[in-house]
Amino acid sequence: MKPILEVAGSFGIAEQYVEMYGRYKGKLDLSINHDLRNRPDGKLVLVTAMNPTPAGEGKTLTTIGLAQALNAIGEPTIAALREPSLGPCFGMKGGATGDNRAQIVPADEINLHFTGDLHAITSAHNLLAAMIDNHIFQGNSLQIDLSRIVWKRAMDMNDRSLRQIVVGIGEGNGNVHESGFMITTASEVMAVLCLSEDRGDLKQRLARMVVAYTISGEPVTAESIGAVDPMLVLLKEAIKPNLVQTIEGTPVIVHGGPFANIAHGCSSVIGTKTALKLAKIVVTEAGFGADLGAEKFFDIKCRQAGLSPDAAVLVVTVKALKYNGGAPKTELDQPNQPALISGLANMRRHLENLVKFGVPVMVAINHFSNDDDNEVALIIEECERLGIQATVSDVWAEGSQGGVEMAEALREMLNSKTASYAPLYPNDLPLRDKIETIVHEIYRGAGIKLSAKSEAKLKELESGGYGTLPVCMAKTPYSFSDQPSLLGAPENFTVQVKDVTLSAGAGFVVIHTGNIVTMPGLPRTPAAHRIHLDEQGQVAGLL
Amino acid sequence: MKPILEVAGSFGIAEQYVEMYGRYKGKLDLSINHDLRNRPDGKLVLVTAMNPTPAGEGKTLTTIGLAQALNAIGEPTIAALREPSLGPCFGMKGGATGDNRAQIVPADEINLHFTGDLHAITSAHNLLAAMIDNHIFQGNSLQIDLSRIVWKRAMDMNDRSLRQIVVGIGEGNGNVHESGFMITTASEVMAVLCLSEDRGDLKQRLARMVVAYTISGEPVTAESIGAVDPMLVLLKEAIKPNLVQTIEGTPVIVHGGPFANIAHGCSSVIGTKTALKLAKIVVTEAGFGADLGAEKFFDIKCRQAGLSPDAAVLVVTVKALKYNGGAPKTELDQPNQPALISGLANMRRHLENLVKFGVPVMVAINHFSNDDDNEVALIIEECERLGIQATVSDVWAEGSQGGVEMAEALREMLNSKTASYAPLYPNDLPLRDKIETIVHEIYRGAGIKLSAKSEAKLKELESGGYGTLPVCMAKTPYSFSDQPSLLGAPENFTVQVKDVTLSAGAGFVVIHTGNIVTMPGLPRTPAAHRIHLDEQGQVAGLL
Repeated sequence: MKPILEVAGSFGIAEQYVEMYGRYKGKLDLSINHDLRNRPDGKLVLVTAMNPTPAGEGKTLTTIGLAQALNAIGEPTIAALREPSLGPCFGMKGGATGDNRAQIVPADEINLHFTGDLHAITSAHNLLAAMIDNHIFQGNSLQIDLSRIVWKRAMDMNDRSLRQIVVGIGEGNGNVHESGFMITTASEVMAVLCLSEDRGDLKQRLARMVVAYTISGEPVTAESIGAVDPMLVLLKEAIKPNLVQTIEGTPVIVHGGPFANIAHGCSSVIGTKTALKLAKIVVTEAGFGADLGAEKFFDIKCRQAGLSPDAAVLVVTVKALKYNGGAPKTELDQPNQPALISGLANMRRHLENLVKFGVPVMVAINHFSNDDDNEVALIIEECERLGIQATVSDVWAEGSQGGVEMAEALREMLNSKTASYAPLYPNDLPLRDKIETIVHEIYRGAGIKLSAKSEAKLKELESGGYGTLPVCMAKTPYSFSDQPSLLGAPENFTVQVKDVTLSAGAGFVVIHTGNIVTMPGLPRTPAAHRIHLDEQGQVAGLL
Repeated sequence: MKPILEVAGSFGIAEQYVEMYGRYKGKLDLSINHDLRNRPDGKLVLVTAMNPTPAGEGKTLTTIGLAQALNAIGEPTIAALREPSLGPCFGMKGGATGDNRAQIVPADEINLHFTGDLHAITSAHNLLAAMIDNHIFQGNSLQIDLSRIVWKRAMDMNDRSLRQIVVGIGEGNGNVHESGFMITTASEVMAVLCLSEDRGDLKQRLARMVVAYTISGEPVTAESIGAVDPMLVLLKEAIKPNLVQTIEGTPVIVHGGPFANIAHGCSSVIGTKTALKLAKIVVTEAGFGADLGAEKFFDIKCRQAGLSPDAAVLVVTVKALKYNGGAPKTELDQPNQPALISGLANMRRHLENLVKFGVPVMVAINHFSNDDDNEVALIIEECERLGIQATVSDVWAEGSQGGVEMAEALREMLNSKTASYAPLYPNDLPLRDKIETIVHEIYRGAGIKLSAKSEAKLKELESGGYGTLPVCMAKTPYSFSDQPSLLGAPENFTVQVKDVTLSAGAGFVVIHTGNIVTMPGLPRTPAAHRIHLDEQGQVAGLL
C-alpha cells in the first residue's frame, strides 16, 4: 500500500484537502469541490450487471479491476464505490471490497468501522428516534399518533430479533408502542446523505423527512422535532468522501451505501462529483442488476444530481447466464450450451434497457478459471450479432492486466460514441404512471396491480405535493418480475404493489412489491464464527 | 492546537507509534508498551472529589489544569481521562472535556464519535446479543432459558423508551422475550476493555462474560456462543489508547469511560500504564465522589492492574461544601459560614478514607469567581488543622498559571511522602464481608441489609467460584449512604442491598443498593435543541 497522501498526490489532490484516518485512509474536505468548481468533469461510466445469482457476478470486482486497467492504459481513472456495512460482514456475505487482484485496501478496515460513517448515520438516526419518543413523553404538543410513528431505529448489525419490537415498557420509560430496527444501510439518513450536494442540501433533506403523523393525519417532520441541527452535527464528518486505493494504487472513493431495494443503491453524489473533478474517467456501480440498480442510478441519482453519464458496462458471467437459462445451481460448473443460449435472453433485455437511457453500452464477461471457452465464445458472438462490444475480464486473477482489453474497448467507445442521457420518465408524470412505465419499459411486465392501501397512499402523496418525485422500486433482484423464481426474460407477469412509503428527505416514493426485509438475520453458521485475529494481530476470515 | 505528532514527540513518542485520526487525534500502537517495558514508571496521582452536587465540582477540569500546571513547573506530566459518551452530550450534561482554559481539544471531536471507540464497543456488544438470539433461533443447542438472557443490547444514546422492550415479535423474527438497551458506557464490554492489560487479556475477559443461564441453571458465556473472536476483531482498534492535548499542548490520554455505578468508573488500564512509561507524573481521575470513584480506583483498577498509586488529590468547592452543610441549592452563591463549616464534615470523611488506602492526600479548592474569600480561608484552616495541605486552584480562569500553587504542593508531597498503597480488603474475604467492610470503613454506615434475592445470589456466586472477586458498589453518588438526600457525613444508616449481579469478564460483583438506571432519558429541553453547526461549519452549543 502507498501512503494515502501519495495516492491523493498522484491525482493532484493537495495535502490540505486530506484528513488522515491512519496512514491509508483519508477523508476529502468538502472545500475541494468548491475550489475545483471550474474544472471540467471527467466521463462517468456505470458498471451494472445482469440479474444476480447465487454464483456471484463480480460487479464490484469488475468496477475495481476496470479502474485499475484504465490507469494501466494511461487513462487517469477513479472508482466510486459504496461503503460496506458491518452487519453482513458477520452474517452471510463477508466483506465487500473486491477480491484477490482487484480489491480495495486496507480491506479489513474498510469492512470494519472504516472512517465511522455508518456509525455516525446510526447515531443521527437514533437521536431522531429518541427525540420523537421524548417529545411524546414530555407532553406531545405536536399530538403525534402513537400508532403512526413511521421512524424506527437503526443498527449496523444483522439481528432479526430487533425487526419488530415493543418499546416503552415499564414505569417511567415512556409510552408503549410498536417499533423496530432496520439495518443502517436501510435508514433514510443513509439515502439522504448519499443524495446530498453539500451540507446545506443535507440539512434541507433531513428537515423534510417525515417521521410520524399526528392524530389528525398531518405529517410530522424531523424539523418539527427539532432534530435537524444535532443530526447535522453528528453527520459533519460522514458527509466527506473517503479516499482509499486498490492494491495497484488506483484511487477509490468509497462513500455511502444505501440499500438497493427501499433506497437507490448508489454511492454518494458528493463522492461521484469529487471524483469527476479529479479524474478523466470515473467508474461507479449500482446495487443489484440493471433492472433495479441502473434504473435507479439513472432515474434517481443522475436526475437529482444533474449528472450526465457517458456509458454503461454490463457485467455477465457464464455461470449466471446458465443459471438464468435454467441450469441447476449445483451444475453451473458443467458445460451446458442450451442453458447458456437460453440465459442470454436475460443479458439481451438488460442491454436493450440500458440503451433507453441514452448511453452507449458494452459487455464485460467476468471470467472464472473453470469457464468453458466455447461458452465464452457464444456470449461474444451473441453480442456481435447485437452490435455490442463484449470483452473478457480476468481482473480477479490478473488485476489490471486482465482488464486491458475491456479498458481499451471502453476508451474506444467513449471516444467514438456520444451519450445523450435522459431519464426514463419525466418528473410530472403521475406516480402510478411512473410505476407502469418502469414495469413496461424495463421489467417488460403486462401491468401492475395496486393493493387498496397502495392506491390510497398514492392519492394521498399526489395531493400532498409529492407527485413529482421519482419512484424507487423495492423488488426482488433475482428476476425482472416481482417473483424471484422467474429467471431469464419473463413476460406477461403482473407486478403486485403491496405498499407505498414516502422518503421525503431522499426525495423518492418507495414502491413495495413484496415484503422487503430491512433487517437481515444471521444464518445458521454466521461468518462471525470464522472471523478472528491471527497470531500477528491481523484480521482473518473476513473475506 | 499543535499537530498531535508534535505533542507526541515532546514526550519522546516516535512517529511510528502514532496512528493519526485527523491532524489532532492519534491512537498509540500497543507495541509501545512492549518496547518501553524496561523503563521505570512515573508517579500515579488520583484526582477525586467530595460528594457531587448540582453545582458541579470540576474534577475533570482540575485534573486537566493540574497536568498543565505540573508541566508549567517543569514536571513532564500526562493526564489520563475517560472518553465522553455521545448520549449525555445530547441530553443534559453537555460535553466532558473540561472548560475554558483547562480543557482538552479538539473538544467537539472528542465529544462526538472521537476515534470510534464507543461505536466499536456498541458493535461488539450488539453482535454478541444478535448471536445469542440467533443461537436460540437456530435450535438452541445450549438450552438457553429465554427468561434468563442477562445480556441486553447497547446504544450510545439517551433513549428511555429502549430501557425495557420486547423483542422477536412477528413471524420469522426469532423468539419473543424481554430485553432492553443500556447506554454503551454501562456495557460490560466497556468495563472489560478498560481493565484489560492487552489483547490476550481482553480476549480472556470477553470469553468469561456470562450472558445467560440454561434451563438447568448453568451459566452461558460469550465463549460458548462463539462470539469472542469476532468481538475481538471489532475491538481491535478501540483497545489502543487515544492521544490528544490540552489547550496548552499537554498530552492527554483519553481512553475508555465505564459507568461509575454498575462499573468501576476509571479510564483504561492500558492508557494509564502507557502514560506511566512516558511521563514523570500521571494524573488521572475516577467517577463520582471518593466514596465510589476512589474506592473503586484503589480496590478494583489498581488491585487488578497491579498499579501503585502515589498520591490522591481531593477536589472540593465552597459551593459543594455549603450544599453538603445544608444550604439550599439556589443560595450557594450567598456567604453562609455555618453551612460551610457543617459541610466540611463531608471533606473530612473523604480525607480520612483516602488515607486508609495508604496514599498521601492533599486538597484542591476549585475556585469560582464569586467565592467568598473568608469561606475559602476557612477550608484552608480546617485542612491545616488536619495536617493536610490545601491549595486554591483557578485553572478554569487562568489555565496552568492558576494551578501552579497546587502543582508545587503536589510535587512537594510526592517528594516528601512515600505511599504504601494497599486495597481496603483482601481478595479472599467473603463477598458479604467485602460489602460490610466498605460500608463500615468508607460509608460509615451501621451495617447492611440484604434482600432475600441478594443473599441467595451471593451464595450462588461464592459456590460458583466468584467469591474472590472485588465488589463494585452501585450506589447513589450524592451521599455516603444509599439515600441521595443524606448529605454531609451521615451516620447510623443501613445500606439496603437490593440485587447482586456478576460481571465475570470485568472481574467484579456488582452490588445494587437501589434502582440504577443504565439508560438515561432526554430531559424536557434536551441539549440537542441548542447544538448546531455555525456559519463556518463548526460545532456550536455543545459545551
